[in-house]
Amino acid sequence: MTTQDVFENLQELLEHNEIREFREAFLDHHIYDQTQFYLDFTDDERLELYSILSPQELSEIFENIDFDEVDIKPYLKEISPEYLSAMFDEMSSDNAADILTNLTKRERRAIFSQMTPENVTEIRNLMHYDEETAGSLMTTEFVAVVANQTVSSAMTVIKATAEDAETIYYVYVLDNDKQLLGVISLRSLLISHDDTLISDIVNEHIIKVDVEEPQERVARYFRDYDLLALPVISHDNIMLGIVTVDDIIDVIDDEAQSDYSGLAGVNTDNVNQNPIQSAAKRLPWLVALLFLGMGTASLIDHFDGLVSKASVLAIFISLITGTAGNAGTQSLAVSVRRISLNDEENRSFFGLILAEIATGLVTGAVTGLTIFIVVSLWKGNMILGLAVGVAMFCAITVANLAGSLIPVAMDRLGFDPAVASGPFISTMSDLTSVFIYFSIAGIFIHFF
Amino acid sequence: MTTQDVFENLQELLEHNEIREFREAFLDHHIYDQTQFYLDFTDDERLELYSILSPQELSEIFENIDFDEVDIKPYLKEISPEYLSAMFDEMSSDNAADILTNLTKRERRAIFSQMTPENVTEIRNLMHYDEETAGSLMTTEFVAVVANQTVSSAMTVIKATAEDAETIYYVYVLDNDKQLLGVISLRSLLISHDDTLISDIVNEHIIKVDVEEPQERVARYFRDYDLLALPVISHDNIMLGIVTVDDIIDVIDDEAQSDYSGLAGVNTDNVNQNPIQSAAKRLPWLVALLFLGMGTASLIDHFDGLVSKASVLAIFISLITGTAGNAGTQSLAVSVRRISLNDEENRSFFGLILAEIATGLVTGAVTGLTIFIVVSLWKGNMILGLAVGVAMFCAITVANLAGSLIPVAMDRLGFDPAVASGPFISTMSDLTSVFIYFSIAGIFIHFF
Repeated sequence: MTTQDVFENLQELLEHNEIREFREAFLDHHIYDQTQFYLDFTDDERLELYSILSPQELSEIFENIDFDEVDIKPYLKEISPEYLSAMFDEMSSDNAADILTNLTKRERRAIFSQMTPENVTEIRNLMHYDEETAGSLMTTEFVAVVANQTVSSAMTVIKATAEDAETIYYVYVLDNDKQLLGVISLRSLLISHDDTLISDIVNEHIIKVDVEEPQERVARYFRDYDLLALPVISHDNIMLGIVTVDDIIDVIDDEAQSDYSGLAGVNTDNVNQNPIQSAAKRLPWLVALLFLGMGTASLIDHFDGLVSKASVLAIFISLITGTAGNAGTQSLAVSVRRISLNDEENRSFFGLILAEIATGLVTGAVTGLTIFIVVSLWKGNMILGLAVGVAMFCAITVANLAGSLIPVAMDRLGFDPAVASGPFISTMSDLTSVFIYFSIAGIFIHFF
Repeated sequence: MTTQDVFENLQELLEHNEIREFREAFLDHHIYDQTQFYLDFTDDERLELYSILSPQELSEIFENIDFDEVDIKPYLKEISPEYLSAMFDEMSSDNAADILTNLTKRERRAIFSQMTPENVTEIRNLMHYDEETAGSLMTTEFVAVVANQTVSSAMTVIKATAEDAETIYYVYVLDNDKQLLGVISLRSLLISHDDTLISDIVNEHIIKVDVEEPQERVARYFRDYDLLALPVISHDNIMLGIVTVDDIIDVIDDEAQSDYSGLAGVNTDNVNQNPIQSAAKRLPWLVALLFLGMGTASLIDHFDGLVSKASVLAIFISLITGTAGNAGTQSLAVSVRRISLNDEENRSFFGLILAEIATGLVTGAVTGLTIFIVVSLWKGNMILGLAVGVAMFCAITVANLAGSLIPVAMDRLGFDPAVASGPFISTMSDLTSVFIYFSIAGIFIHFF
């Protein structure tokens, strides 16, 4: 049975009001599939669903919706505040906080008023953390024990919290002030003797992050240290929550996705669109860059006198702009990658820029020399070759500089460096390349 | 103490032969840091290390080396076969297989001859799987129980295998023929009563992958279903091993990385290089594209007659090539992304291409119309505007087609679609755009 058949079968059960059969068939699927079905149901079918599923069952579906791709507001609006309150009471606090940020303050208040006060406090606290920080990713449902417990009493704590905790595979050891002392994996608890003291087996070399640490850095810890969860602490080492690996996979995926989209000047998030939707997504960039490109066109117009004197100049316009654009894109990619790796040691602004200028000088020199030889031989005119070669050299150096400078500057100013996209850099570099080319050609014009 | 200080301190201890202090200080660090230190030591220091660390301790370091960035061969060559055999006996089979593929058959045989025969068989089996498939990622160290066991006897199995298993947090239920029946999380074992039968709590809706499934698809399961591990089965449902989430993070990261590098025409893997190294990495692409760009230049040369008659034509060369290049890059990015998502439903070859042509027609029409209006007003010549507009329309449609067709075709032919990089597409599209532009301009030449 294909997914489509399964879905139609579910719709039929709903239509014929066969509630028991529907529940059985629906809940039998993995929560990911349940979520897809939920999103694919019609409005009427969903309204029916809210009377069939418990708030707890729907809470799991909501935990699985990808907010980057689905606008959650209309779904929330169609559910009664009572049901929503019960649902958010069941949900892990990080996801509840993420979803609730989509509502207005007034709507939130209506929901909070009917929830368990402790849950409300937890969610409210989480909502304060900046987006894309450890705080915004963390959940407060973790397992904690104290150092002078025995292994067997720790196991009792774990069993008691197993239902609610986001992960039970790492157990955190706290002192009486909730300061984080260390961590024990469930694995080492299982292989230790029941009477062993936690303090004897705790791992105190714990990797932890500050609540305000950016999410890329958090992702990097997971990557380097092969973690399943990472504790999040306040400035004074109070344990606040944990980030789990499933959330980090989404972060790594989204980051990669947004860098990639930026480089191409198109949002590739949703690839399944009809041609009109695709075109609508691509046109803003294309038309904006078209007008930027008009700048280059009017610059060439300005140098029209040179072209009519020596039409041979027209031959090399696209070669120089294209090559400089390619160099600028390479430089951009390296620069954005370096920023997203958050490479502390390598983030001296001027060091970065100087290195990129040096790289530009080397690539420009090699490329310029190549084109000098080719043009000199092809056109039998070394002066023309020299003009094209020098222009190429300068254009590549400038493009490299722009390709690295712009994302670094954007990052410093607090913008996403990936927005300085590839097409933007190449269109910008068209402008400077044409200017450089004709300025240099103007000097040598009498020899062509 | 900075990492650099720690490292120098370790070097000093080695130099003064303070073995006990060195071991204590070195092994106290997280395995990731130990690995960095190991790679940073001098040849002599490493040779000393092999007499200080046990094969088991070194095996953990080797499991953490990132083979994409480090050439492992010289390290293996400096270690004695006896030590290597002991080390690979301690290592998880997937990592051992990965490392051993770097050696020649003869070198492997020397090592295998001194290893435990069962381990050799396991590693040999793993080495047969194609790279970038589930089989090449999996490890054979998982915890398995049978359906008619009780929870408490399953817990005994888990405790006994906890040291060796790659993860103990999922326990797999097999029948007598090693066929996979279902899975239980350690969490649900812990909250179940000791006498409960495994068959009563097993989850039979198991997500599993075939051993030959490509790694991107495996990564996608992890992303969608929030898994910590995924069982790998043979064609006849025999359980072969598991893939764990830490390996998948590396897959996701590498895939994103290689798509991104491809789009920019530069390998961004190692961003910490000096300008000469950086230039050496970028120049091959730049110079190759330069020669491809010479094709465009000679095409313009071919149309030199047109340019000398109407130098106004030169103005719009870079505008048309640039815009078509941008459109082609967008199309390429969407296409590569779609392929890497491995979207089964959307992989009808002609469906994809038709959709992209349609998108090209729409974006081309809008952009062409825009430039027609702008040029007509600017130059007061509607025929010129028409020529530029129509050329733009055609060039964008062709660039979109190429941007989507080339990666899809490469994927079908078994190449990495990301190699059809952005700069390559834009340089190719320069050529076709110039051809289209001058062909159309040639028709209208008498009106300029």
